[in-house]
Order: sequence, then C-alpha cells, then structure tokens
Amino acid sequence: MAKIAFFGLGNMGASMAKNLVKAQFNVTVFDLVGSQVQLLAEAGAIPSSSVKQAVESAEIIISMLPAGKHVESLYFDEDGIVNNISAKSLFIDCSTIESNTAKSIGARLQAHGHRFIDAPVSGGVAGAAAGTLTFIAGGEKVDFDEAQSCLQAMGKNIFHAGGIGAGQVAKICNNMLLAILMAGTSEALQLGIDNGLDPKVMSDILLQSSGRNWTLELYNPCPGVMANVPSSNDYQGGFLVDLMNKDLGLAMGTAANNQSVVPLGQLAKSLFQMHGNAGNGKLDFSSIFNAYKHG
Amino acid sequence: MAKIAFFGLGNMGASMAKNLVKAQFNVTVFDLVGSQVQLLAEAGAIPSSSVKQAVESAEIIISMLPAGKHVESLYFDEDGIVNNISAKSLFIDCSTIESNTAKSIGARLQAHGHRFIDAPVSGGVAGAAAGTLTFIAGGEKVDFDEAQSCLQAMGKNIFHAGGIGAGQVAKICNNMLLAILMAGTSEALQLGIDNGLDPKVMSDILLQSSGRNWTLELYNPCPGVMANVPSSNDYQGGFLVDLMNKDLGLAMGTAANNQSVVPLGQLAKSLFQMHGNAGNGKLDFSSIFNAYKHG
Amino acid sequence: MAKIAFFGLGNMGASMAKNLVKAQFNVTVFDLVGSQVQLLAEAGAIPSSSVKQAVESAEIIISMLPAGKHVESLYFDEDGIVNNISAKSLFIDCSTIESNTAKSIGARLQAHGHRFIDAPVSGGVAGAAAGTLTFIAGGEKVDFDEAQSCLQAMGKNIFHAGGIGAGQVAKICNNMLLAILMAGTSEALQLGIDNGLDPKVMSDILLQSSGRNWTLELYNPCPGVMANVPSSNDYQGGFLVDLMNKDLGLAMGTAANNQSVVPLGQLAKSLFQMHGNAGNGKLDFSSIFNAYKHG
Amino acid sequence: MAKIAFFGLGNMGASMAKNLVKAQFNVTVFDLVGSQVQLLAEAGAIPSSSVKQAVESAEIIISMLPAGKHVESLYFDEDGIVNNISAKSLFIDCSTIESNTAKSIGARLQAHGHRFIDAPVSGGVAGAAAGTLTFIAGGEKVDFDEAQSCLQAMGKNIFHAGGIGAGQVAKICNNMLLAILMAGTSEALQLGIDNGLDPKVMSDILLQSSGRNWTLELYNPCPGVMANVPSSNDYQGGFLVDLMNKDLGLAMGTAANNQSVVPLGQLAKSLFQMHGNAGNGKLDFSSIFNAYKHG
Repeated sequence: MAKIAFFGLGNMGASMAKNLVKAQFNVTVFDLVGSQVQLLAEAGAIPSSSVKQAVESAEIIISMLPAGKHVESLYFDEDGIVNNISAKSLFIDCSTIESNTAKSIGARLQAHGHRFIDAPVSGGVAGAAAGTLTFIAGGEKVDFDEAQSCLQAMGKNIFHAGGIGAGQVAKICNNMLLAILMAGTSEALQLGIDNGLDPKVMSDILLQSSGRNWTLELYNPCPGVMANVPSSNDYQGGFLVDLMNKDLGLAMGTAANNQSVVPLGQLAKSLFQMHGNAGNGKLDFSSIFNAYKHG
Repeated sequence: MAKIAFFGLGNMGASMAKNLVKAQFNVTVFDLVGSQVQLLAEAGAIPSSSVKQAVESAEIIISMLPAGKHVESLYFDEDGIVNNISAKSLFIDCSTIESNTAKSIGARLQAHGHRFIDAPVSGGVAGAAAGTLTFIAGGEKVDFDEAQSCLQAMGKNIFHAGGIGAGQVAKICNNMLLAILMAGTSEALQLGIDNGLDPKVMSDILLQSSGRNWTLELYNPCPGVMANVPSSNDYQGGFLVDLMNKDLGLAMGTAANNQSVVPLGQLAKSLFQMHGNAGNGKLDFSSIFNAYKHG
Repeated sequence: MAKIAFFGLGNMGASMAKNLVKAQFNVTVFDLVGSQVQLLAEAGAIPSSSVKQAVESAEIIISMLPAGKHVESLYFDEDGIVNNISAKSLFIDCSTIESNTAKSIGARLQAHGHRFIDAPVSGGVAGAAAGTLTFIAGGEKVDFDEAQSCLQAMGKNIFHAGGIGAGQVAKICNNMLLAILMAGTSEALQLGIDNGLDPKVMSDILLQSSGRNWTLELYNPCPGVMANVPSSNDYQGGFLVDLMNKDLGLAMGTAANNQSVVPLGQLAKSLFQMHGNAGNGKLDFSSIFNAYKHG
Repeated sequence: MAKIAFFGLGNMGASMAKNLVKAQFNVTVFDLVGSQVQLLAEAGAIPSSSVKQAVESAEIIISMLPAGKHVESLYFDEDGIVNNISAKSLFIDCSTIESNTAKSIGARLQAHGHRFIDAPVSGGVAGAAAGTLTFIAGGEKVDFDEAQSCLQAMGKNIFHAGGIGAGQVAKICNNMLLAILMAGTSEALQLGIDNGLDPKVMSDILLQSSGRNWTLELYNPCPGVMANVPSSNDYQGGFLVDLMNKDLGLAMGTAANNQSVVPLGQLAKSLFQMHGNAGNGKLDFSSIFNAYKHG
C-alpha cells in the first residue's frame, strides 16, 4: 500500500485519516494542533511533528484545509512540503477552494515534477465519519486512477469531472444549484401553504411531478414533512448556512472568471447571505424556509 | 356509465374527449368551432349545437378552456350551462386558471346546488393524446372520488391537492418550481461549460449529487446530452416558453393574493419573459439555456 | 365656487377636505365614521348622514378611500352615488387603486353621463395637512382643467399624466422606481461602509456623481447623514414599509396587465416584503437600509 | 512645477497627459506603443523610450492602465518604476482597478518609502479631452492635497473618499448604483409605455417626483425624450455596455471582500451581462432600455 502523508486533522480531516488507517494504509499525519495528531496516533496513524518529518517517505500527499491560501502555504512555504519532499509524489487536495487557485497549485506542482488532483468532498462530518463522502475530482485520468484506492477508503461516490480544477468547478456548480433548489422549493411550498395547502400533500405531488428535486426527495425544508432531516429538528446540524455562503461565494468567484451569467445563483446568494446576517449562520441551510414565512 | 357533457375541443380537449369515448363513456360535445364538434362526432361522441342541447341529460360537465373568463362565461352566461341544466351535476374544470377564480366559480356552482372540482392538467398535447396526463385536483374528497373514473380515462397520475382551488394552486406551485429548476440547471451547466467542463460529465455528476432534479433526469436543456428531448431537436415541440410565461403569470397572481414572497419565482418569470420577448416564445421552455450563452 | 361632496375622511382625506373648506369651497362630507364627519363639520364643512344626502346638490365628487373595491362600492352600490345624484358631475378619485379598476370605473361613469379623473396623491399625511400634496392625474384634458382649482387647494404639484387610469399608472411607476432607488442606494452605501468609507463622505460624492437620486438628495437612508429624515429618527414616521408594499403590489399587478418585464421592481418588492414580514412594516421604508447590515 | 512621469497613453491617458502639458507641467511620457509617445511629444511632452528613462527625475508618477495587473507590473517588475526611480515620489494611479489591489499596491509603495493615491476617473473619453473628468481619490489627506494641482489640470470635480483604496470603492459603488438607476428607470418608463403613457410626459413627472435620478436628469434612456444623449443617437458613443460590465464585475469583487449583500447590484449585473452577450457590448449602456421592450 502507498505511504500517505495526511495534513489537516479538523472535524472532516481527522475522520478521513482514520478511515485510511482502517483501510490498512500507512498514514503519517500532521496538524498544527498537536492534540489532533495525538488523537490520530491513538487510532493507528504515525504522528509527526513537522511537515518535513511527515513527508519524508511519502508517496501520496492528502490535504484537507479551510481555504486556498492554507493549501498554498502548506505546499509552497519554505518549510512546506515541496521544499522537503524527496519523491515525486501525487498530491490530493480535498479542500474546497477556488478552481483558479487549484489550477495554479497544479501548475506549480507539475513544475516541480509532482502530480496533482483537486478532490473536494461533499457529505459533511457525518459522511466523513462513515466513510461515505462524495469526491468530485479534477486532474489527469492516470492520476485520478492512482488516487482511487485512497478515495474509496474515505468515500462512496468518486467522480472524475475533468482536468485539474474541474473538481472544484463541478462541486461549486452543484452547490450553487442546490442552493437554488432549496430556496426555490421553500418558496413553492410556502406559496402553497399561504393558499391553504398541506405541505405534506404538496410535497407528495411535487415529488411525482416536474418540480421533483433532491431537496424534496431527501431533505424537505418544511418542518414535519419528513422525519430525520434538519427541518424536523429545529434546523440543527446538517450543512450550515455559513458553509453554504462560503460555497456560494466561491461560485460567484468562479462565475467572475468568465463573466458567466448566474442570476438565480446570485439571488440565492443574497437570500442565504441575508439569512445568515440575520443570525441564522449556524443553522442548517434548509432553514432558508423560515425566510419565506409570512405574518 | 355517467353521462358527460364536454366543452372545449382544442388541441388538448379534443384528445381528452376522444379518450373518454374510448373508455365507453357517453360523451356529448360542444365547441364554438363546428368542425371540431364534427371531428369528435366521427370519433363516437354525440355532437351538439348549443350549450343547452349539450347539457340536457348530463350528469358530469367537463371543460377545457384557455382562461378563467371563458369558464365563467360558459358556466354562468344567460345561455350558459347553469341556466340550462336540469340535474344537480358535478362540474370538472380542467383548464388552468387563477385559483381565486376557481374558488369563486365553485362557490357560485354550490349556490346552485352543483358540485365542482378544479382539475388542471400537465403533460401537454402528447399526454392528452396518449391518455397519460397528470391531473392535480381540488375539491371535496367525495367529488374527487366521483371524478376518478373520468380522470383515469384521460390521465395516469391523479392527485387530490385539497379543497376547491387547491388543484390550481398546486399546479402553479409546481410549474413555478419547474421554471426555477430549468433556469437554475441551465445556469449551473453553463457555468461548468464556461470553465471547461463537459456538459454530459457535469450532468452525470449533478444527477448523482444534491443538484439532482427532474430537468436533469428527463429534460436536460443542453443540446446533445440527452436524446429525444427538445434541446436535442432545436428546442422544437415540448412545453412552449409562451405557456410557461402564462403559468408564471398565474403564479405571480397567486402570490399576490397573500403578498407571498417569491423572489426566485419572480426572477425566473423575468428571465422567461425576456426570453420570450426576444422571439423565442414558440420554442420549448428548455431553450432558456440559450439565454445563458456566452460570447 | 363648485359644490363638492367629499367621501373618505381618514388621516389623509380629513386634512384634504379641511383644505378645501379653507379655500372657501362649499364642501359636504360623508364617512362611515360619524365622529370624523363631526370633526369636519367643526372645521366648516357641511355634514351629511348618507351618501344620498351628501350628493344632493353636488357638482364635484371627491373620494379618498383605501382600495378599488371601496371606490366601486361607493360609486355603484344601490345606495351609492350614481343612483342618488341628479347632476352630471365630475368625479375625482384620489385613492391609490389599480389602473385597470380606474379605467373600468371611468367607463361606467361615462356610461351614466358623468366625467372622471383618477388623481392619486403622494406626500403623505404631512403633505395632506400642509396642502402640499402631489397629484398625478389621468383623464380628459378638459376635466383635468376643471379639477385644477380643487386640486390646487389640496396640493402643490399637479400633473396630467394622460387619459383615465394614467394617474394611477404614473404614480405606481414612480413608486416602484422609488423603491428601487431606496434599496439600491442603501446597497451602495452599505457596500462603501463595509469597505471602510464614511457614509457622509460617500453620500456627498454620490450626490455629485451619476449615482445622484432623490433618496440621496432628500431622504438618506443611513442614520446620521441627514437631520430631519426618518433614518435619523429610528425610522419613525414617513412612508411606511407596509404602504410601500401595497404600492409595489399594485405595480406588479400593473405589470401583469401586459406581461411587462420588471425584474428590479420584482426584486425590490421581495426585499421590502421580507423586510415587512420580519416585523418592520410600521417603520419608514428607508429602514430597508437595515436589511443590508452586515454582522 | 512638479516633474511628472506619465504612463499609459491610450484614449483616456493621451488626453490627460496633453492637459497636463497645457497646464505647464513638465511631463515625461512612456507607453509600449511608440506612436502614442510620439504623438504626445508633438504636443509638448518629453518622450522616453523606457520606464527607467521616464522616471529619472520624476517627482510625481501618474498611471492610466486597463487593469490592476498592468499597474502592478509597471510599478514592481524588475525593469519597473520602483527599481529604477531615485526620488521618494508620489504615485497617482488613475486606472479603475480592484480596491484590494490598490491597497496592496499602496502598502508595497509605502514599504519603499513612496506615497500613493488611487484616483479613478469618470467622464469618459470626452471628459478626458475637455479636462472635465471627475476624480474620486483615496489616500492620505496630505498626498491628496499634493495631487490636487495635477488632478485639477485634468478634471473638474475632485473628491477625497478616504484612505488608500477608497477612491476605487467609491467609484465602483457609484457605478453600481448608476447601473441600478439606469435599468430601474428603463423598467419604470417601459411599464408606463406598456400602459399607454407618453415617455416624455412620464419622464417629466418622475423628474419632479421621488423617482428623480441622474439618468432622468441628464441621460434619459428612452429614444426621443432628450436630444443629445446616446438614446437619441441609436445608443452610439457614451459609456459602453462592456465597460459597465467591467465595473459591475469590480463591484461584485468588492462585495465579495466582506460578503456584502448586493441583490439589486447583482441583478443589474446579470441584466447588463445578458444584454452585452446578446451583441450589444459596444452600445451605450442606456441601451439596456431595449432589453425591456415588449412585443
């Protein structure tokens, strides 16, 4: 099995690294927070106390960090990976970052003889723990194939979206569309409710009609229609409004690359942003339903 | 079998009436266009030359007309149905009209001792011909049950949305949501394409992710992704932009009843309206994809 | 001086009628609320206890009511004006109602030999008291000219927008544009503030640049920039969010008449509607500035 | 008089440099296009054949370039200004660039002991030729004061918006608001026209009411209402749709800095972007009026 160096042991990363250990990979871990490194060591990973030590014999680098600048810093700083690794390696970045940053990182790595795929995830903390994440990857087909065994240890659905950066693009297009579906479905349901319809009956009809979409299937935003979704649990847990806003920000940045026209995406961003600004940032994003409520 | 009087033999109505005849109902037909009456007579219906004659022994009235004012006129004018029918009958209006108009029609009919359900359809001319329409009905449960055998002769999925007017509300909520799904999906696909992704690969990924919706499943707006959909046939046929605009107009009217908040629905309406105004009214509504194209 | 019968003695109407009295018109008043009639009697108007009595010798009818249905009822009910007036009179409706309703009222009055102008006002309760209202009138030029002396007793700027109904159209276009100006200006100011600019400096620059508009000139929405505007008085008084929402609803109805495209107007409506639904309906409409605040 | 080195002799820059020469400044010019340098030499400027030569004895640097990356390159490349200038100078960048880039440029210049103000302009090619540009500047007050005599040689209104970067912020807020005013006014005028009103009458009423704004005062978008504006000249000349789209892109980038909420600005951007994509990029931006036309 390939030797992996794993960087970024936050809520998501720690679970992902554990699943690699469980799958019998040889995993060396590093994080700025020592206690997280210790936690992984107890789970069977090899702890390290510096980037340099972590990458000593690594063949595959996996990173899971908050934003593009952190990835750039980890990879290219003087005491970063590229200056301290001996083998020509495959870098797999699972962070959600701007696609242009991913492309630029890929080019810089290639200039040093390394390979790169961007492989952002969806599925949240629960999916990370259960090993059921979705990975949407960008990069050369041969590199994608090489990454498969690692990714399958951490996730269930693994997609190859295209060249480097395509993983970020596809993820962000999906999440922008998801924001539109969630707000649009909330709007349609509340319009029905305002006119006397029962939300459960409405949902059943829409599900069997041309309004059908993922939110109606699995994540109904109206309390009481579905059990075991955030809307029936005071919008706790799930995918936070703040995180949706981060992704919508990335989508707008991606649109700006080519002056793409995204009117519904922009409006969804404003709606979620106002909803977050009104103090709902830590609620599940299906709480946008509340923004349509009607005195 | 109940004796039916059927009014409105346009593209949709003629096919619907034929399917009732095929199902062995006793169907008397009337339309202002005599040649359409003749056509149905050849198909086995009983022709009539006036409203009065058509309803003489009718127990069930079915109407399929362009707008609310036509239904009101047919039902309540001096030479209309109510003044010329003897039995207390069940009126089934399959037209797509304002929900408030449906409610007011229902109340007036009840004042005369009749019963009413509003039962707008979706599925288009093809669905009408094939007898596979979807009916979304509003009215008393007992009346809905009585209408079942007729509706099943003309359609496949028959929903009961609630009281009188609820059929119109549910249909219009569905179609507003559909407009949002179609425009939103077009936007997400084009954003991916602008950033170098293949629309077929993108569509596959979205379909298996949280962006999944009816348009990606059955009606992809990007040419070449799916066979046998309007987008792969120069956006001919299907559900016309002009008709989507009519339905979005009804949705906005329904929202105005209670000052409901429908920002995405409004924006979808503006996008489809501008698209129609630019000369695309007779194309399929998935042609909204073209509005996102990018020089 | 012409004999006037005045109907609708609410906050606005009572002040308007008083100003007519002050201007030496012979004014008979009627309202369903007897105490308001009494109030006007004390101010010098002739009280009446029924519509019939009020119009006995009237040459000019003025009405100031909440909505179109009230005007229709006052004019056309069995015990309404038309059935009880002897002279062929000039009806001046100062209510803000749907332009289509105004047109239909005008046509019905003309059928009875009367004349009609729609003359909705702006300027609010303060303008009504001070006699500085703006009237935007629709109707025949000759009727408009005849109405001038009355209107000038109650207002300062009197516009003739076109034929019957044009007053309503022009007023509603103005108020839709005003909503866009107020929200757009709030958005631009807050964007500057978010980036460290001083709102007073920003406002000065915008005022002398191509962003100049009425709200920056006279009604800055940012607290502290201008004295004596609602924003510097906790958004008390002024033009209520609820009233702006009423007018935006009329604008959307007017747009629906011809499927006009009004994307910014629609979005402004959603923003003001959400703002009102969040409990701000009784604040001045410049409080929309708060919707842009940013944690 | 201060010795000026001027960089960027395009349509705007060439006229600006000429006005400095006319005002008796000692102006050395450089541009990558030699013929433009020659042109300025004929107008009285001192030509130079390299950045190094241009800045030899310069005390004030003025740049007028297309985008932030050009400014960064001119200032900081190995053969750029900073590496080749001896005096501690005042840099005045008149380009329209991202405010964050302006801030970062300012910080880098300060680290080398230089001073910086960002001073983007409005007024277009005509204003540059006539010396009537508007400058909206950001930087220290003392630097702004020092720049005054130069700026006054090129323009008429000179504003100090705040610290470094504030000029860019204020300009972009103004232009975002202008886009909203122009589209909103078009929408209101067309709504009136659709309902039978005369655009000239409408414009007069709006101008004297709360819908008043700069576009109605000076730049009416409806053909025939005003003489000598682009709308009455087939939308030729003026401020191009493509340039408005560039500025709206900068506004969206500025909003993204702090996740500011700019729904109307976003929608205006989509409307202008779609209008440009439909082949209208080289028309004046008031041609957005055509997007509201109605079959």
